[in-house]
Amino acid sequence: MNCRIILVRPHFAANVGAAARVLRNLGASELVLIAPAADPRDPEARRLAAHAGDVLDRCRVVADLGEAAGDCVFVAGTSARVGGLMRRQSVGTPEEVLARLADAMTAGPTALVFGPEADGLTTEETSRCHWLIHIPADPVYPVLNLAQAVAVCLYELRRQWLRRQENPLTPLPQGERGESTAPAPFVEQERMFAHLRESLEQIHFLWDDKADALMHVLRHLIGRAGPTLMEVGVLEGLARQIRWYVAHHPPTEKGG
Amino acid sequence: MNCRIILVRPHFAANVGAAARVLRNLGASELVLIAPAADPRDPEARRLAAHAGDVLDRCRVVADLGEAAGDCVFVAGTSARVGGLMRRQSVGTPEEVLARLADAMTAGPTALVFGPEADGLTTEETSRCHWLIHIPADPVYPVLNLAQAVAVCLYELRRQWLRRQENPLTPLPQGERGESTAPAPFVEQERMFAHLRESLEQIHFLWDDKADALMHVLRHLIGRAGPTLMEVGVLEGLARQIRWYVAHHPPTEKGG
Repeated sequence: MNCRIILVRPHFAANVGAAARVLRNLGASELVLIAPAADPRDPEARRLAAHAGDVLDRCRVVADLGEAAGDCVFVAGTSARVGGLMRRQSVGTPEEVLARLADAMTAGPTALVFGPEADGLTTEETSRCHWLIHIPADPVYPVLNLAQAVAVCLYELRRQWLRRQENPLTPLPQGERGESTAPAPFVEQERMFAHLRESLEQIHFLWDDKADALMHVLRHLIGRAGPTLMEVGVLEGLARQIRWYVAHHPPTEKGG
Repeated sequence: MNCRIILVRPHFAANVGAAARVLRNLGASELVLIAPAADPRDPEARRLAAHAGDVLDRCRVVADLGEAAGDCVFVAGTSARVGGLMRRQSVGTPEEVLARLADAMTAGPTALVFGPEADGLTTEETSRCHWLIHIPADPVYPVLNLAQAVAVCLYELRRQWLRRQENPLTPLPQGERGESTAPAPFVEQERMFAHLRESLEQIHFLWDDKADALMHVLRHLIGRAGPTLMEVGVLEGLARQIRWYVAHHPPTEKGG
């Protein structure tokens, strides 16, 4: 994804490392630090980056936002506060703002800017962002950890980006032998239900005037799940096995 | 939000603490730990929980998933792997699965289950979840840190939940005789599946090394539909009838 993650004056090396891991996990890779107090080569950063040490190796350290995002066509900042001057700014949820950022990614580099742990971006910094993202957190304690905020925003951006790839978010999972997860054709379901009904009559689960109602419940339950061909096959196997059992253990005078 | 966060055998106290903070940030508050290696009273957990120490104070420690989620109407697990048996299970993106969970929250308690850091949920554990969530991460390094996975899922759940607060759903439709259409509690479903399994073993539908895989298919077909109490009762009746039939038509030398 053509989006740079910019951390402004991050204080804790652990947060820089954890953020690097999230970048790699969610398909971003360009990390820029503005005047960091934390050293990206700190062992704690390494430890939390886990298998994303390369993101730390390649991260750039710069002096200010102009240097970090000068070439970007779209810069979004994050803020837990939405008062004061920010009221005059374009503020939106991650979904609203990152949909715009995902559109902009096709036009050129973009950036997502996160402020320092303790006090967030300054008014001067937020005013330089095109949009501000406000994560709709619980008002009781709305301040996410820095790396968690990066995770939430990158997840949302990736969601928007994948949607635009016109790949379905995840390809429909395939069964072990490549079966589709699409519901089985109606005719296959009908045949299975007929066999199931026959077998359930043979063990006297369905009988008398309750048979239709009970069968209706089973049909409705299974139909609601949209059974796949594989699943219809398993239910066919169950019906067959019940018929087999009855054929080999026929009703006696006493029990039948 | 009526959703319990369950961490299965978490290893690192820091992750438990960071998860507690995310719960508080994103509007969840009930944390349950299953057989944790990490101590929620560890100072490292406290430090990372920041202002969410109360979530740690009130977290429950239990022995297994049945105890943790017995009363839940919807249980979603998370998995970075989607191979093997899981291919037969209902898997979706956070958006797909958590939209369903947000709907289910109006019917009763729900749970989101996260596996241990190193190896995730066991096959037995995932097979007990109604749905599995697969975060569409970058295939190069798809494994998110535990607390980051919690953050991503709770962000998505909160997004879905807030959307529903704006557009409240029409009340859940009632069955013909006024029965609820809410899914039956997890514990009732579990009891029924245990009885169903026992009965299917008696007619030799389940046997040998295929038993687990076949039972898995049935569980997930039925689980996906979210069976109501009435439907669970019908399936209990079916299991009982099969056992009755077998008891009255016992295997003979020839047929059994």
